[in-house]
Amino acid sequence: MESQDILSLCRRRGFLWPAYDIYGGLAGFYDYGPLGASLKHNIETQWRKLYVFEEGMQELVCPLIAPEPVFKASGHLDAFADMYVECRGCGESNRADHLAEGLAENPAALSEEELGRVLEEHGVKCPVCGGDITAPRRFNLMFKTTVGAGSSKSGYMRPETAQGMFVNFSQIYRHGREKLPVGAVQLGRAFRNEISPRQGLVRLREFHQMEAEIFFHPERKTWPRYNAVKDRTLPLVPDGGVAAELSLSDAVSSKTIANEALAYFMWLTHRFALDVGLDPKRLRLRQHERNEMAHYALDCWDLEAETTYGWIELVGIADRGCYDVQAHLKHSGADLTAFERFDEPKEVVREAVTPKFDVMGKLFKGDTKALAGKLSEMMPDAVRGRDEVVVEVDEKKFASPSSCYDIVTSTEKVSGEKFVPHVIEPSYGVDRILYAVLEHAYHEEDDYVTLSLKSSVAPIKVGVFPLMAKDGLEVTAKELSESLSSDGIHAHYDESGSIGRRYARMDEVGTPCCVTVDYQTIEDGTVTVRNRDTKEQVRIGKDEVVPTVRGIVEGGNIEA
Amino acid sequence: MESQDILSLCRRRGFLWPAYDIYGGLAGFYDYGPLGASLKHNIETQWRKLYVFEEGMQELVCPLIAPEPVFKASGHLDAFADMYVECRGCGESNRADHLAEGLAENPAALSEEELGRVLEEHGVKCPVCGGDITAPRRFNLMFKTTVGAGSSKSGYMRPETAQGMFVNFSQIYRHGREKLPVGAVQLGRAFRNEISPRQGLVRLREFHQMEAEIFFHPERKTWPRYNAVKDRTLPLVPDGGVAAELSLSDAVSSKTIANEALAYFMWLTHRFALDVGLDPKRLRLRQHERNEMAHYALDCWDLEAETTYGWIELVGIADRGCYDVQAHLKHSGADLTAFERFDEPKEVVREAVTPKFDVMGKLFKGDTKALAGKLSEMMPDAVRGRDEVVVEVDEKKFASPSSCYDIVTSTEKVSGEKFVPHVIEPSYGVDRILYAVLEHAYHEEDDYVTLSLKSSVAPIKVGVFPLMAKDGLEVTAKELSESLSSDGIHAHYDESGSIGRRYARMDEVGTPCCVTVDYQTIEDGTVTVRNRDTKEQVRIGKDEVVPTVRGIVEGGNIEA
Repeated sequence: MESQDILSLCRRRGFLWPAYDIYGGLAGFYDYGPLGASLKHNIETQWRKLYVFEEGMQELVCPLIAPEPVFKASGHLDAFADMYVECRGCGESNRADHLAEGLAENPAALSEEELGRVLEEHGVKCPVCGGDITAPRRFNLMFKTTVGAGSSKSGYMRPETAQGMFVNFSQIYRHGREKLPVGAVQLGRAFRNEISPRQGLVRLREFHQMEAEIFFHPERKTWPRYNAVKDRTLPLVPDGGVAAELSLSDAVSSKTIANEALAYFMWLTHRFALDVGLDPKRLRLRQHERNEMAHYALDCWDLEAETTYGWIELVGIADRGCYDVQAHLKHSGADLTAFERFDEPKEVVREAVTPKFDVMGKLFKGDTKALAGKLSEMMPDAVRGRDEVVVEVDEKKFASPSSCYDIVTSTEKVSGEKFVPHVIEPSYGVDRILYAVLEHAYHEEDDYVTLSLKSSVAPIKVGVFPLMAKDGLEVTAKELSESLSSDGIHAHYDESGSIGRRYARMDEVGTPCCVTVDYQTIEDGTVTVRNRDTKEQVRIGKDEVVPTVRGIVEGGNIEA
Repeated sequence: MESQDILSLCRRRGFLWPAYDIYGGLAGFYDYGPLGASLKHNIETQWRKLYVFEEGMQELVCPLIAPEPVFKASGHLDAFADMYVECRGCGESNRADHLAEGLAENPAALSEEELGRVLEEHGVKCPVCGGDITAPRRFNLMFKTTVGAGSSKSGYMRPETAQGMFVNFSQIYRHGREKLPVGAVQLGRAFRNEISPRQGLVRLREFHQMEAEIFFHPERKTWPRYNAVKDRTLPLVPDGGVAAELSLSDAVSSKTIANEALAYFMWLTHRFALDVGLDPKRLRLRQHERNEMAHYALDCWDLEAETTYGWIELVGIADRGCYDVQAHLKHSGADLTAFERFDEPKEVVREAVTPKFDVMGKLFKGDTKALAGKLSEMMPDAVRGRDEVVVEVDEKKFASPSSCYDIVTSTEKVSGEKFVPHVIEPSYGVDRILYAVLEHAYHEEDDYVTLSLKSSVAPIKVGVFPLMAKDGLEVTAKELSESLSSDGIHAHYDESGSIGRRYARMDEVGTPCCVTVDYQTIEDGTVTVRNRDTKEQVRIGKDEVVPTVRGIVEGGNIEA
């Protein structure tokens, strides 16, 4: 099997195809057709079942366009970039670090100048036409746009769904009745303006994510259900260690995995992968190497699947510490903290922004009071080390120089403490998962293709056929198909071509079973139910069809 | 009730709120919180049930970013624009036609110059600060971005999901086994860079649509299920006529509605509105006035709901003729036609692009043959009236002047004919529907708010409470809540505050029923089930809770 086999099946049968092909296409964009949309929908439903229903997380739906300050805070504006070179001949752009692979150690970590030197020393040419290339230039991978007419604002297509949860931490915390841990999820699109996307569904410019952001007290990173699963094992490939099946509790106690919560969500991720039908023998959880991990991450693991593209990342599960919430707190000045009540009041050392009324009075006259009030509400971290702070009062902006305030330390008796929560983030790539599901389900024997999709994700649950489209067989078959559909089971009626051809069409798109109405149906009211994987057929009564098929769909196995 | 009541309930209880408020907000963008996301999801599920399951339409998921040629063809690049004026003082932008309202008849139809004159003559000033305003300027309402690094391409955020279906007509037609009518649907985001969005959820820059594009033979605009519903009535407000309840068949035979298919989808739209709980007394189907309708539309109706914003459009249902597919055929040169086989072969007059080899030979030498092959495959409409046609052969582009070919007419015996399909489009605005559903469900009496949401769309289906959080009542209540959840019924466990307070919290978010475990439960195993709308309580056995609640949820009514 090659990835081309999968992609050609996908196009032929309407799972998915490159978008805009009547206009010559646009690299990195795909359309999902009816079968692909259904498969994707089923994968998402399975995920929502785990994260929203079973774990009780809050689902949010945030806009895809966000204003610049969000990505200034998150770091994407400054750091979410690749370097590219353009061909002076054919104009093609290529990733500069990809062209330097094998010519330097870790080319992605080099500066523009260093990378330029490497490419020049080795005389690297355009891989498309052999022409001369430009020096490397940095390119921010966010799609940029502007919001509004006239004096418009910069906006960006979100590169991940995550920021929507971070900027809404206060809402999430409040709706969770101010208790931690609390989790929020988002399913939806994200964007990455890749320089030269290839590799089909594995590298897209517009893709689908399912992300959870779970907020913890920094010192209590566990999860209510951890104990129930702590003896289960996972296929781990630790950084610098050897691959092994380890139980969650062994992995945590040996510090292979940083904490119980992270271990739990790695387990949940692995369970989800099995739920959607990925092959356990082609799955592993690989720990990021130190130089691969973001500087603020405390620990990070990828769920990887083996495919014809090699081992590819499907899910990243990271302990991001307080980085994200802290960044938004600092840039927005909003109080994005959680609060923990002590068993009894404690003496603590506090910092607060304290306005200097004498200095301010001279500068701001009648606005001093309002301005001082605003200043004193700000978090010390939001003003520390800055030359001035811009404060808005009644829609007017005032620049207060740092001489207007001190950060004052005092001792107080307090009933609890504010803190910035830590975040554990499982981030799932839907398109890659869908692709891996298709590859792992794909079987070909003598040019006969069977897609052994798990019933829960199969786009069509049952094919319904009359042996011949006459003698009333087609009427009975249509009735059966409709009663299945009205029961919420996606049935596909088909009367064209030989019965063998019809079975083959259903096997090729992963339909778990087929029901055939034949002449014996007229005599004794029975129909045949055929199993996709064993090709075995059994006869059951017409009235048993709906419950039997429902059992197959819900059970996930196909013992017809 | 005012819209502010709804929006403040929405924010307080986590349905939705203006996005990015920690950064000062961004007009026209909203976040959906957990209850809003669930309500929206339920509305979409209800729609998918009708269009995908019952009507058998193909669901597509297409990218949100599309390349320029798509919108050149669709007309959005040239015509999807409003005019704005900017204030020379405060910099605020405003819709120019809005400022001219009442000063001229139909200001939206005026040119830049005409509108500028009207504003100047009346001395119109900035409505925010009273400052001087600029002359009106045209502003395209698509969000623009660029795709790729270096010599990048222009891309636009789609202003509707529809174009994804039009450019994929060939795929849809093929997956529908080349039969008409065939329908495709898409649920997802669309974007409109409004100049000055106000009015909460009614005018958003980023919004959610559910659209169907149904392709017909131009002379056979009916739908298989039309006959089953043709005697049902609809609340119609025809252009130039009087409002009346008319049956579908009367409306079609009196030419009030253009054809049976359009009437059917108007009926389906009205049925959907009732399914999601809109108030029939506050719904109407209003026909577009001639000058309101796009020039190519054959007929167009809006489903409107009465709200505190007045009558607002929730759904547009239009017969768009062949406009859309024809436009993409013409711009792409792709064969976006359907084919109809005749009962027996007919003589027809055909047009074809016929290359002139003598002229071409001199111009293109060895490339002539390949080039002529490409030319002869093009549709006559794609070359008609053009000075030259650019043809690509082996990745090289050739400009063929019109002297290289003729459009030749000939008579042939053919077995069928190609034609460009007509399209009927029901286009639903999800956010507005959700807002209208909330308004129609909102009841306030003595400061007590009840949201009478239909069970099928209610975000939480059942509240589960222990009377007191002790004596084991809380254990039984939690078990009940979990057995409901694991049965796929969204249950909400709550043990805090008085029981009255807990009922009130559930009434306020539209939860159809509440189950309470009390001391009698310990004695006889019964619990109370309370009905949101009647406030009545009945006792049932613990074991009956799941089926009873399931009945309430599926039945849509709440006879606890």
